[in-house]
Amino acid sequence: MALALGQARLAFDLGEVPVGAVTLVDGRVLAARHNQREGAGDPTAHAEMLVLRDTANVLGGWRLSVVTLVVTLEPCPMCAGALVASRLGRLVYGANDPRAGACGTLYNLCADPRLNHEVPVTSGIRSEECSNLLTSFFADRRAR
Amino acid sequence: MALALGQARLAFDLGEVPVGAVTLVDGRVLAARHNQREGAGDPTAHAEMLVLRDTANVLGGWRLSVVTLVVTLEPCPMCAGALVASRLGRLVYGANDPRAGACGTLYNLCADPRLNHEVPVTSGIRSEECSNLLTSFFADRRAR
Repeated sequence: MALALGQARLAFDLGEVPVGAVTLVDGRVLAARHNQREGAGDPTAHAEMLVLRDTANVLGGWRLSVVTLVVTLEPCPMCAGALVASRLGRLVYGANDPRAGACGTLYNLCADPRLNHEVPVTSGIRSEECSNLLTSFFADRRAR
Repeated sequence: MALALGQARLAFDLGEVPVGAVTLVDGRVLAARHNQREGAGDPTAHAEMLVLRDTANVLGGWRLSVVTLVVTLEPCPMCAGALVASRLGRLVYGANDPRAGACGTLYNLCADPRLNHEVPVTSGIRSEECSNLLTSFFADRRAR
């Protein structure tokens, strides 16, 4: 989560909503990315989507069942759907997202037996730091 | 939908699950893509995700509120989430997806007032052709 927070801080400095994500296999980091929707002008460029694509590239295929993804904020429906679609091994996240969280808050796409994969989830890791970064970002924006 | 079906047939010929998508603004086609998860080895490479990214690239930004996306199959949670995240103007799809459909079947992510955007949806366009293509694809696979 320290690495994911580092990525989120990079996003903050670039004027992007500060969310960061990393992937690991057996404790080894495979990829680390941050949200870059504004910079890339890409609606799908959330940290989780970018790190999933990098990871699939490193591993040479789309099935990521050996991978743990660590992200600072609870994934939205798009990203939670992508975790299921990639057959992710495990999700670890920091802060809950009351506005769009899809891994327990508004939806729980990671634990739906009707879909073709379920993802074990651990949440609440360093959630205050993850959440404070987002709160500062939006407070800064409103103050402008 | 004819163009989206053409893309789905291209996917079929490449051994990819045959789903195709196109985007339009005022009747003008902006992008056309098909599913290429296997070929690209990318878990996020559904037709809708690829066509959204191409479209944002053409329009120079991630807000796609003037865009209509036409796809042969009801979007999954990842893709439906991406339509919401891109503030899409309208979704038109062919066949319902009883296994993963997230625009009315298992979920309706396009019509959730808790999320920050709702997408008007028209469904059932040439649904039999869209669905038959998928049925043939999976029948072919099982026969191998």
